[in-house]
Amino acid sequence: MGKRHALNFLERTPRAELVAASSPDLAELEWAKTHLAPFGVKLYQNYDDMLKQEGLEAVVIASATSVHAEQAIKGMEAEKHVLCEKPLSTSVEISQSVIDVAAKKPHLKVMCGFSRRFDASYRDAEQKMKAGSIGVPSVLRSQTCDKLDPTGFFVAYAQFSGGIFVDCSIHDIDLTLWFFGADSKVKSVSAVGNTAVEPDLRKHNDRDNAVGLVEFHDGRIAYFYASRMMAAGQEDTTEIIGTRGKLTVNSQPAINHVHIYDDTGVRREIPQHYYDRFEYAFVTEANEFTAACLDNTPLPLDLESAVKAVRIGSALQESLITGKKMFFDLQGNRTEVAHL
Amino acid sequence: MGKRHALNFLERTPRAELVAASSPDLAELEWAKTHLAPFGVKLYQNYDDMLKQEGLEAVVIASATSVHAEQAIKGMEAEKHVLCEKPLSTSVEISQSVIDVAAKKPHLKVMCGFSRRFDASYRDAEQKMKAGSIGVPSVLRSQTCDKLDPTGFFVAYAQFSGGIFVDCSIHDIDLTLWFFGADSKVKSVSAVGNTAVEPDLRKHNDRDNAVGLVEFHDGRIAYFYASRMMAAGQEDTTEIIGTRGKLTVNSQPAINHVHIYDDTGVRREIPQHYYDRFEYAFVTEANEFTAACLDNTPLPLDLESAVKAVRIGSALQESLITGKKMFFDLQGNRTEVAHL
Amino acid sequence: MGKRHALNFLERTPRAELVAASSPDLAELEWAKTHLAPFGVKLYQNYDDMLKQEGLEAVVIASATSVHAEQAIKGMEAEKHVLCEKPLSTSVEISQSVIDVAAKKPHLKVMCGFSRRFDASYRDAEQKMKAGSIGVPSVLRSQTCDKLDPTGFFVAYAQFSGGIFVDCSIHDIDLTLWFFGADSKVKSVSAVGNTAVEPDLRKHNDRDNAVGLVEFHDGRIAYFYASRMMAAGQEDTTEIIGTRGKLTVNSQPAINHVHIYDDTGVRREIPQHYYDRFEYAFVTEANEFTAACLDNTPLPLDLESAVKAVRIGSALQESLITGKKMFFDLQGNRTEVAHL
Amino acid sequence: MGKRHALNFLERTPRAELVAASSPDLAELEWAKTHLAPFGVKLYQNYDDMLKQEGLEAVVIASATSVHAEQAIKGMEAEKHVLCEKPLSTSVEISQSVIDVAAKKPHLKVMCGFSRRFDASYRDAEQKMKAGSIGVPSVLRSQTCDKLDPTGFFVAYAQFSGGIFVDCSIHDIDLTLWFFGADSKVKSVSAVGNTAVEPDLRKHNDRDNAVGLVEFHDGRIAYFYASRMMAAGQEDTTEIIGTRGKLTVNSQPAINHVHIYDDTGVRREIPQHYYDRFEYAFVTEANEFTAACLDNTPLPLDLESAVKAVRIGSALQESLITGKKMFFDLQGNRTEVAHL
Repeated sequence: MGKRHALNFLERTPRAELVAASSPDLAELEWAKTHLAPFGVKLYQNYDDMLKQEGLEAVVIASATSVHAEQAIKGMEAEKHVLCEKPLSTSVEISQSVIDVAAKKPHLKVMCGFSRRFDASYRDAEQKMKAGSIGVPSVLRSQTCDKLDPTGFFVAYAQFSGGIFVDCSIHDIDLTLWFFGADSKVKSVSAVGNTAVEPDLRKHNDRDNAVGLVEFHDGRIAYFYASRMMAAGQEDTTEIIGTRGKLTVNSQPAINHVHIYDDTGVRREIPQHYYDRFEYAFVTEANEFTAACLDNTPLPLDLESAVKAVRIGSALQESLITGKKMFFDLQGNRTEVAHL
Repeated sequence: MGKRHALNFLERTPRAELVAASSPDLAELEWAKTHLAPFGVKLYQNYDDMLKQEGLEAVVIASATSVHAEQAIKGMEAEKHVLCEKPLSTSVEISQSVIDVAAKKPHLKVMCGFSRRFDASYRDAEQKMKAGSIGVPSVLRSQTCDKLDPTGFFVAYAQFSGGIFVDCSIHDIDLTLWFFGADSKVKSVSAVGNTAVEPDLRKHNDRDNAVGLVEFHDGRIAYFYASRMMAAGQEDTTEIIGTRGKLTVNSQPAINHVHIYDDTGVRREIPQHYYDRFEYAFVTEANEFTAACLDNTPLPLDLESAVKAVRIGSALQESLITGKKMFFDLQGNRTEVAHL
Repeated sequence: MGKRHALNFLERTPRAELVAASSPDLAELEWAKTHLAPFGVKLYQNYDDMLKQEGLEAVVIASATSVHAEQAIKGMEAEKHVLCEKPLSTSVEISQSVIDVAAKKPHLKVMCGFSRRFDASYRDAEQKMKAGSIGVPSVLRSQTCDKLDPTGFFVAYAQFSGGIFVDCSIHDIDLTLWFFGADSKVKSVSAVGNTAVEPDLRKHNDRDNAVGLVEFHDGRIAYFYASRMMAAGQEDTTEIIGTRGKLTVNSQPAINHVHIYDDTGVRREIPQHYYDRFEYAFVTEANEFTAACLDNTPLPLDLESAVKAVRIGSALQESLITGKKMFFDLQGNRTEVAHL
Repeated sequence: MGKRHALNFLERTPRAELVAASSPDLAELEWAKTHLAPFGVKLYQNYDDMLKQEGLEAVVIASATSVHAEQAIKGMEAEKHVLCEKPLSTSVEISQSVIDVAAKKPHLKVMCGFSRRFDASYRDAEQKMKAGSIGVPSVLRSQTCDKLDPTGFFVAYAQFSGGIFVDCSIHDIDLTLWFFGADSKVKSVSAVGNTAVEPDLRKHNDRDNAVGLVEFHDGRIAYFYASRMMAAGQEDTTEIIGTRGKLTVNSQPAINHVHIYDDTGVRREIPQHYYDRFEYAFVTEANEFTAACLDNTPLPLDLESAVKAVRIGSALQESLITGKKMFFDLQGNRTEVAHL
């Protein structure tokens, strides 16, 4: 993602200038020498050094999740605007620490990049919902399902990912907060999962399929499915069900406008990876973040919401592992009993 | 088709009683001994003998096209109602002779079975069009495309079929007369074709792909595609384009509600044969024909329209073979020049 | 449904003869006088009287759910085969009592009619799954969603329905037992719901939207959504996710093959009611039940599975109302703690 | 289109620099003052003056069709690479004159921009065809159908457009040459049309619906539909039918991934204008043209093909107006009789 962000800011964000890039990884730096340096981009092995680069006004953080928060805070302390890949951290507390610093720097633009907020289809759905086309949105179903990676890479990855709900469903949770309102108060969460293809995930307290249920105090319901074993490709689908209609996003996945008719039937191909599906959302994100920094206009999503998403994702992951349903009061404190 | 009609009238047409069946073909009679005779159906090798069967009130003709007209006429002369498979004949003159006899027997119900007229989707489209949902229907595209039969059976079949426009597109032509009105007057026809898989079709003056263009004197246009080489299955698709909207029938063919997601993409299967797609239309046809006979109510389509369809199909076939565009005046006479 | 079953057995089940019908409801009897009596069907106001009708070999029970079990048992005691509408009862114990009687009458065919088992699309999906096309089925999502009935009829109905999971999701639970195996052992259930359109449902301990999560001891997961407020029509959708592929049934609902293009976009209509979608499944059910009775062949689904479905549905309903997650051991006994 | 090209070269073509823009239209120049001048783009009212601008290496011509050829030739004479909007001219002779000049300047990159050649879906289809997935491509159907513009603007526009086949179907013709091969030799063309919404088109020898049939000497067939009265939006659809399969592009038009379920059914919106559908194709075109100029690599489509497309479009338009079928020998000369 770092490479993609770099190229997007270099080539597809007219109002931004890419002045520097850093990575502790030598292979990545080698790539940058070929793809970025010829266009005047200064390269650094050390993030801290890069922060001292003259003319640097904003940083885009796409490093390992474990250093997201630290780098975001350092960026703010160096008076840079910050666009940080999701999640801020797999830890609620560390995520909150980013907010705390940001709160003291209201002149800086600090955003956690939930790419679906910038996707044309999700935006269209949200506008239609806002315009009342489905009445009161009451139930939301959303899934983030990755194509099976037969190398089993995701087992090693699970050690640091925070678990499937924090890593994958975080997008669906963010969408829920967008469609139901950032102030929606969780009443309960419950989750189950299995390891249909990779039993080794259990040693990292993770699963390859998980279903989670979130109930809000106002009665709304969201339910999520995350999987790492889709055969056809990436399947990120959402439906928002209201009292007078329903909106779906990507209920019929397709990579493009081609259909193939052959002796197996009628077929279309679908995106293989997250980026296949959301490429233009990332470009829009880069451009809108740039505009907000340059024009000092509001960001399209606020940082608190990103922490709230981590909070819900972590609770779902805990429920997944303990097998227990968890209850929360209106203040967000955990309680032992269901609120009826 | 004879077997299917027999079973439909035996089992799926509550108001009809199947009393007799005939076929000159011994294998078919053998089949009938197992499937029809046990339910009291009398069997005949000879159609003329069957006509004398006591209690017989109506005949369904699904024999070789070459004897359709003769059997229909004999049926009428024996005072039976007649449901005859399309086409009445590949010859316009012979088709007309059926009408001439029928005209003298107005108390008999005589229908040429264009199954799509009984299909729920086509009926829905026609009702929506009649209700004004697309404004004035102005252009119609329709295709009848069979799955490739690798045995090449259709080459031998072409000898008697009347050609691809009379055999396949006749349905599309009939739909045109239904949607544009039975009194639509042809102004010109032109057609081209090729033999992409079976060059031997040329010796029977036929093609395996053909495209035809029909222009009406009121300005409406219909264009047709017929093929015998579809890889995925039967693809019979129609669109009716009006000044305020468009209706399509079967623009997304599917045999059922199943989708298969695997490493080739997202796939659905489609009907393999005509009967897979139109099974229930044939059942409806049997029931409605029965009701018209018993209740002496009007038939849903008139016989003249069936002859008109053969007339247009034959003209298209001639244009296909000669390569010439053909022109007609308002009286239906062929002329040498275009009417502008 | 009684009327539909009667007509299906009268007109669309060639091997069955409809000899009698009963209803305590005078309006229904009036209808039967017009539609059934003319074809020789004897009418009764009293079910018990009908059981004495000479020649009666099998009964189809489509009465109020509260008398299903009683009538089924009486039928068996009168030595009749029994086809009973789902559910046998909203009570697990009463459902079990039907099984107990049936166990003593192994010569009788006794079936609880889960119509989706007879639907061509579900059957196709099941055969593809059995043939290995999706690897090991691991997660199942299924929903039964009714079109909103603005009369609010379903509020009064909820008093006797057993609740939304027993009334609607029972189909999805039955499908789960079909696709995952009838011997699948439930490990936990949890459910949430809301009353988005009809708060009055709460007085009958019901909801108009509900999501349920079922975990099996072998690790498989099923999750269900039931709703009574769909705007477009009936939406009964299922997906079965395996380790090498996925099958969906009705992920793109459509009533027929027509698409309408107008200034609002491209549109298709969908079934408005359950019967619109499953009409032919009911006809198949009638024919297959008849064949099993006449030929003494096995029924396509067994009665125990029907009781098991009620058991799971009741547990989900209890979880919905109490807000608590419920746990079960391998013997099906409720336990207080999660089994990890 | 001029504005769009200018912005695409300014903002979305990293290797290009927009140095100048010209328009004789004062309103356009006003727009350019706001949108281009601030980024250092020099503005001209006169194309000839602009050609003298220092540093100018290539021109993009998106002026009125009537001056395309003249400006392209002037550009080449000034030693500029040229990207010219389609068509070069509505006249075959004038189009040819551009080729003649280009032939003398082989060091210049001269391309007529057929945007669909740069569309990801068309490219995917073409690659699949090339890879043999459909056997031998034998029949091509393609349509360019615009949303009805109720202002009737297109009547005035018809005066200069060259007619609906040259203006709209030119894209479909170009696709045919791409999929069937640029050296395909036309054997016959025939066309019909009507004026369903705008009878006034007749005074400019044009129609609002037209269907054309093109037969090639090798037996392949292409048929085209063009319309200016689509209710739902832009519908540009293509299918390529081969001996072992079929590829469709845009058989299910959709503007994005959203479906709307409401009491009218299930609906999606579709592109309203050409640019909605092909926006990214234009960006790709800009980038690839730039790369070819800078790297002196071959252009993705050659100029001769563009003239051939005009030639076929003009013949179809003539056939549309005269009502006559036209025949051509292998050398492309018109003949009076059909070649069988």
